[in-house]
Amino acid sequence: MSESFVEAITPRKENFSRWYTDVVLKGQLADYAPVRGCIVVRPAGYAIWEAIQAQLDARFKETGVENAYFPFLIPESIFSREAEHIEGFAPEVPWVTHAGEEELPERLALRPSSETIIGTMFARWIQSYRELPMLLNQWCSVIRWEKATFPFLRTSEFLWQEGHTCHATEEEARARALQMIEIYRDFIEEVLAIPVLAGLKSEREKFAGAVDTYTVEALMQDGRALQAGTSHYLGDGFARVLDITFLDQDSQLKFVHQSSWGVSHRLIGGLIMVHGDDRGLVLPPAVAPTQAVIVPIYKDKTRSWVLSEAQKLAERLRDAAIKVHLDDREAYTPGWKFNEWEMRGVPIRIEIGPRDLEKEQVMLVRRDNGTKEPTSQDGLASTISQRLEAIQENLYQKALKFREANTYQATTIAELSDIMSNHRGFVTAGWCGSDRCEQMIKEETGATIRCISWEENQPDLPCLCCEDTKGKPATFARAY
Amino acid sequence: MSESFVEAITPRKENFSRWYTDVVLKGQLADYAPVRGCIVVRPAGYAIWEAIQAQLDARFKETGVENAYFPFLIPESIFSREAEHIEGFAPEVPWVTHAGEEELPERLALRPSSETIIGTMFARWIQSYRELPMLLNQWCSVIRWEKATFPFLRTSEFLWQEGHTCHATEEEARARALQMIEIYRDFIEEVLAIPVLAGLKSEREKFAGAVDTYTVEALMQDGRALQAGTSHYLGDGFARVLDITFLDQDSQLKFVHQSSWGVSHRLIGGLIMVHGDDRGLVLPPAVAPTQAVIVPIYKDKTRSWVLSEAQKLAERLRDAAIKVHLDDREAYTPGWKFNEWEMRGVPIRIEIGPRDLEKEQVMLVRRDNGTKEPTSQDGLASTISQRLEAIQENLYQKALKFREANTYQATTIAELSDIMSNHRGFVTAGWCGSDRCEQMIKEETGATIRCISWEENQPDLPCLCCEDTKGKPATFARAY
Repeated sequence: MSESFVEAITPRKENFSRWYTDVVLKGQLADYAPVRGCIVVRPAGYAIWEAIQAQLDARFKETGVENAYFPFLIPESIFSREAEHIEGFAPEVPWVTHAGEEELPERLALRPSSETIIGTMFARWIQSYRELPMLLNQWCSVIRWEKATFPFLRTSEFLWQEGHTCHATEEEARARALQMIEIYRDFIEEVLAIPVLAGLKSEREKFAGAVDTYTVEALMQDGRALQAGTSHYLGDGFARVLDITFLDQDSQLKFVHQSSWGVSHRLIGGLIMVHGDDRGLVLPPAVAPTQAVIVPIYKDKTRSWVLSEAQKLAERLRDAAIKVHLDDREAYTPGWKFNEWEMRGVPIRIEIGPRDLEKEQVMLVRRDNGTKEPTSQDGLASTISQRLEAIQENLYQKALKFREANTYQATTIAELSDIMSNHRGFVTAGWCGSDRCEQMIKEETGATIRCISWEENQPDLPCLCCEDTKGKPATFARAY
Repeated sequence: MSESFVEAITPRKENFSRWYTDVVLKGQLADYAPVRGCIVVRPAGYAIWEAIQAQLDARFKETGVENAYFPFLIPESIFSREAEHIEGFAPEVPWVTHAGEEELPERLALRPSSETIIGTMFARWIQSYRELPMLLNQWCSVIRWEKATFPFLRTSEFLWQEGHTCHATEEEARARALQMIEIYRDFIEEVLAIPVLAGLKSEREKFAGAVDTYTVEALMQDGRALQAGTSHYLGDGFARVLDITFLDQDSQLKFVHQSSWGVSHRLIGGLIMVHGDDRGLVLPPAVAPTQAVIVPIYKDKTRSWVLSEAQKLAERLRDAAIKVHLDDREAYTPGWKFNEWEMRGVPIRIEIGPRDLEKEQVMLVRRDNGTKEPTSQDGLASTISQRLEAIQENLYQKALKFREANTYQATTIAELSDIMSNHRGFVTAGWCGSDRCEQMIKEETGATIRCISWEENQPDLPCLCCEDTKGKPATFARAY
């Protein structure tokens, strides 16, 4: 029975995307919904989202950001005010035309992002420099009617947060955009144990309506890149069309400068694709809703003894702030439970049976490397805390090594193309900065520019495409 | 300046609904959105919602409920499957017909409630009694295109939670519906300090598709009732049309029995209308995002001394788990700050100036009764904790007394009508149980049946309308 359970997941080498959907569906993280391109986020997946939310939210609030909630529906006249914004999003916006039997006087867009509706309110709320900076965020879902969808990574509706800020100066707004991309980087590396490259998007890849888009990019096990979070310096473009002005200390009426920034539930997809293995999900302890699962092993005679000891153990660990779950289900064998919790990525399994109890120990099994360690019950909470830290660090280091081993240089399109059609990965290569070369490279290799450095004084590197010697380094990859 | 600030709120006696919108708008709890019937929940309001969410969510999880997220859009073929459900909601459902330029093959409803979409997934996930009970909840927004809207109380989009459960038996599903209404009652009374009547809805007032709807009803200061939360026993009606079956232990294929239950951000409206006064909002400490605000009072010479002492004080209180905010804004006078924080309902104000510091004391001012108390800095955290508890209890008792003073008996329609056109309030009167009498009473008096007891063996009370001697007591009121 346990065998068949493990076999249910397609091996990564056989078919990576089937492996991924197996982990998502069989691990009950999500399911396909009966609405095109939409998923249901199931409790095992939503608990990860809650852990992400709680920790990111605390980091936002530490920097003065406050949460709010803005309407899901945006009147067309407001949504279409910023030309690039509407142009970028219009193809994937669902429209509401009727409520009940009544035809609405104006079509309403289902928000793909809330710059316009929030900007409209900023215009009403901001009068003078005293109200600045205004730092808002909302946790919500948005809709983008995508053609090709993939659970968590690209869905027609997705959960995310979107931060929107207004500042008196360009300098301050840019600093905020950078501060938020650093918060994302720090969170994704420290908590999700996923190393990321932070950089600037090219004109072609940037957010519709932004002056500059900062991004953090992660490398998946199949060598494809995942854009994990973005932060935009919006300039005063939205402010000009939405009339968001303030009376400055010098008595001049000025437009505000803005930033916006977001991460979505695709981070869960990233967790799966960076850390997962052929047994299923592998969760970093810092984001795992359950950090340790206790599986009691008993026969009829030893049942009540083992269960009562397991309960005591669970309480002791809970008191030590370890997120522990006791799996005391009667309908399943220990072997079945081992496999299920491995598939669900719980960092540590604690096996406890009569022989362990006699020796006053338990068996600790690490999900990340499979090591089994008979461990004294004495000081167990502190041993487990140490192991959790070790797992967190190991997962990060493993992912970092993988990225380093899969980062290449290319000097010709042929080289880049060769890498993209074989093992893939991140490729550093020169780019002249022109849209034309960027598009040609994409067409010939399937790779897009994931990011360029925002630091000045980058060394010259001849353009991969036009061989202009004044090119600068850019990171290319095929992306989700 | 401080005077004009207070005058900005319309007195309750002058115009209760204008007083309410003044508190909402000037207290920056919410603002009108440029979308019909929608509001923006601003940070001061959203922080209250976060406090409600956190505490309710913990109570749900203690009973085994897990969170998930289901699509916002429901295909018409699924939404219309349960006849009473679609009939009840259809008039206020917005429909999506197009995404971008593309016409959709089927109209999509914006969810007014998620029984049908969640039920469709239950049908897929539940195979046998082993998966039961299944206890899910989602925190989200829903859309009901209302004709008449009012901030927080009735808006076209609103924030809420909706719990949905499946059980093997009617008994278990009913017990869950009752358990949840008790959780709502307990939370609303203990945390929001709002006394509620719990009872059963009449056929006319119950949820579209439910067998029975349990409700908790609160009395506002203008004598109108507010339905504060509902919990439904759904029977197997949705299970039959959505085919949610399970193989029971006796090897029979059976339909599940269901419950669903929800509260929304109208609870914030209830908080305002129950506890507020002519100076603005009054928040119970258990749900106040800020429990105490420190207002430093200084002149140029004493500025740095007072501010540094105020900062130390804030840290000490924070360490004692008191939610404290230090208002060190330079652009506003202490008097202006007093009024602002009163308007925003912060339970305790702490004034600290040079004379207080010399005496090693601060001035504590209670929001609920205005008392000023010079208080030693020694043991201040514990003094404040005691005051917060006293405020919480005082608000509840005040609201309870108000409800008791505004609960009446009526034996004729004329009496009920008289009460409704004067002071209003809850009215206990007999009702024969017929829809006809219920409707006649509503037409003549404006009052609806808020709830009837779910306990059996209620005493006979002649029907207010038809004078049938076998009537049973019901609670009538005009409602929001």
